[in-house]
Amino acid sequence: MFVVPLIERKRDGAALTPEEWSALIAAYAEAKVPDYQMAAMAMAIFLNGLEPTELVEWTRAMLHSGDVLDFSEVTVPKVDKHSTGGVGDKVSIPLAPMVAACGVAIPMMSGRGLGHTGGTLDKLESIPGFTTALDPGQFRQVLDTCGLVLAGQSETLVPADRKLYALRDATATVESIPLISSSIMSKKLAEDLDGLVLDVKVGSGAFMKSREKARELAETMVGIGKAYKVKTVALLTAMDEPLGNEVGNANEIAESIAVLQGEGPSDLVEVTMALGIEMLSVAGIETDPGRARTMLEAARTSGKALEVFARVIEAQGGDPRVTEDPGSVLPRAPHRTDVTAEHAGFLRGLDALKVGVAAMRLGAGRERKEDTIDPAVGITVLVKPGAEVEAGQPILRLSYRHPARLEEALSVLDGAIEIGGEKPDSTPLILERVD
Amino acid sequence: MFVVPLIERKRDGAALTPEEWSALIAAYAEAKVPDYQMAAMAMAIFLNGLEPTELVEWTRAMLHSGDVLDFSEVTVPKVDKHSTGGVGDKVSIPLAPMVAACGVAIPMMSGRGLGHTGGTLDKLESIPGFTTALDPGQFRQVLDTCGLVLAGQSETLVPADRKLYALRDATATVESIPLISSSIMSKKLAEDLDGLVLDVKVGSGAFMKSREKARELAETMVGIGKAYKVKTVALLTAMDEPLGNEVGNANEIAESIAVLQGEGPSDLVEVTMALGIEMLSVAGIETDPGRARTMLEAARTSGKALEVFARVIEAQGGDPRVTEDPGSVLPRAPHRTDVTAEHAGFLRGLDALKVGVAAMRLGAGRERKEDTIDPAVGITVLVKPGAEVEAGQPILRLSYRHPARLEEALSVLDGAIEIGGEKPDSTPLILERVD
Repeated sequence: MFVVPLIERKRDGAALTPEEWSALIAAYAEAKVPDYQMAAMAMAIFLNGLEPTELVEWTRAMLHSGDVLDFSEVTVPKVDKHSTGGVGDKVSIPLAPMVAACGVAIPMMSGRGLGHTGGTLDKLESIPGFTTALDPGQFRQVLDTCGLVLAGQSETLVPADRKLYALRDATATVESIPLISSSIMSKKLAEDLDGLVLDVKVGSGAFMKSREKARELAETMVGIGKAYKVKTVALLTAMDEPLGNEVGNANEIAESIAVLQGEGPSDLVEVTMALGIEMLSVAGIETDPGRARTMLEAARTSGKALEVFARVIEAQGGDPRVTEDPGSVLPRAPHRTDVTAEHAGFLRGLDALKVGVAAMRLGAGRERKEDTIDPAVGITVLVKPGAEVEAGQPILRLSYRHPARLEEALSVLDGAIEIGGEKPDSTPLILERVD
Repeated sequence: MFVVPLIERKRDGAALTPEEWSALIAAYAEAKVPDYQMAAMAMAIFLNGLEPTELVEWTRAMLHSGDVLDFSEVTVPKVDKHSTGGVGDKVSIPLAPMVAACGVAIPMMSGRGLGHTGGTLDKLESIPGFTTALDPGQFRQVLDTCGLVLAGQSETLVPADRKLYALRDATATVESIPLISSSIMSKKLAEDLDGLVLDVKVGSGAFMKSREKARELAETMVGIGKAYKVKTVALLTAMDEPLGNEVGNANEIAESIAVLQGEGPSDLVEVTMALGIEMLSVAGIETDPGRARTMLEAARTSGKALEVFARVIEAQGGDPRVTEDPGSVLPRAPHRTDVTAEHAGFLRGLDALKVGVAAMRLGAGRERKEDTIDPAVGITVLVKPGAEVEAGQPILRLSYRHPARLEEALSVLDGAIEIGGEKPDSTPLILERVD
């Protein structure tokens, strides 16, 4: 029962020593500390926080609860990117091949969608045959041959975080900046990276609704990265409306391929470029933003990045023809219906949260971890905020399978579309940079 | 998973509805809510508190998690007394027979000692044959025939509190005023009382070290009693030095019998009288303090109260000759050693916490719930603070069985005795009254 005095101290707002954190987390990972004690500790941390030095030790203890990858013989710089999650946020999918095509090794481990946000793994798995469950040998082989691998997190990496995350989900202790930061950073630090770029989403469709909270999260994660001598940069990016035009799984893959074909919606391209420039910089490949942008543009317009993506898809069991003809390879929902403008005016807003929840209700996301997703359903944004619309003009197109789910999705979308008499001010997509 | 939003609200400092508390506690009692969720809730309550109306509902839900006694056909007023625990605090044992002898029915349910404080049940069980584990029928029968019963809490009363108490003990959520108050009051309200007198101890040997915290606890408990229309009064009493001269189990029974024989140390008699006066008042037997004191004095000097005690002991399987000749009936430890004054002067302090911990180390108390206690060992206070002492004069006498335990006890007593050049100011025993 060495745990009670530790909970007591955190409860009373004091700090624990590195040895105490490390003993506690090791014992928790080995199930020598019961969930109820960790639940009380998590709530005490939620309400009283962790000091910066405690956070570094907490993260270290999490990190060492399992295997830590070793890519020391990879001679090129290794960089990953992480997004805190948004609606239509498929950035990783075009971004990773573009940056890999510029000579950076990307051992990317992604997650699944939960709630209103999508997950990279779910999106990739809408490509027929594509597997994201790789063993360490396969992971390494795809990275070596393609310079990029797109996989799920191995079970042996950061097991304490996996266990704690499930507990936090059941004990209302998820939305804690130190706990979120250390959860993300422990997983990324286990990948043996040289650099890391974080996309911290802010707005209605993000977990962080306010700029201040998002900045605090970004600063906390960058601080942890710095303590581990991994070059870490965060961008705060807007998530008030869906990113790009597609929300779902197969349709987001199609849109990602469009970006890699030199096309794609401008907001998606802009966020992808901004993050790519940071990745080339932390990799030490190109620190001048203008030159980095030129390199990335060349990678996507030359087809080189698309070629990398096709190789990765093939190496991970997927059908690489998707990169040439997404429409015929990807699954397609049987039915479509449009949500139209109620009156004429300027489209002033398109609520990302509502669109995200509606897509989840259609079957594109999970309400609970055990739910299965339907890769074919989703929502297409036909008109982006700022445009002038006529009464009755289609704004959103819902691709669905079950009429009952359509019903639910449509009721969620009530109030999602804001039309007004004045053209809205244009707002920046890239809000802030934290390094 | 209806629990997560409830934890979230309490975590964020909001109040839950009566229906929510009742559903949560019922589900917890039936093991439909896991310990880890209740642990997170307990920590959120510890840090954010419960509003007065929430506290009443929480207590009601605890109370209704099990059986509630029904003494409606008992025609005399039913009153109980509860102490928050101290060192040498055997008050219940002489008090209950004195008040019962004045015509009040006392269905007393007591607890065991934990840590440095003793428990009434442990003390009573040092009387050979005495059992405190009564079934509801036996409990009722002893109460009917003797007007007093001295038992442990039935397993079927307030089971949710029993379960929660064990959880709080393991999750550093014990010292919370709303949780302590509702735990005590739910158990007492399940006894179907007309009145309740609370002895809230304050000082080094009490759980509440400060007068402010003790007052807050007293006011909170009195508030719950009021909400249930049970006349409730609390006295704040001093616990900086042991109460009376004996600390242990058998030796505290002997001292209690001395009080019932019209003798006993003055501080113990004073606290017993003060609480007895309140009990006769809430019972409606005698609201004038002077007349109540006379009644209680008569009960103990006439031998009537001792007779009640003897009848209860016999009814509960114990040897009633203890009331006539405690020395030959009670167990006695084989060895004795004295702690003496290091120099001459006035005895200025005798640290209750250190004496309590030392008695526990001798075997009179439990460090963990599963420890067994030795009824024969204990500490006798030979000189009370305020007296003038000579160098080498015995101050404390330790009655022990195992030399190793004596060693431990002596080391705990280091610094427990404070001797100075000036006579200390005398401090009041009864600090405050809350009703």
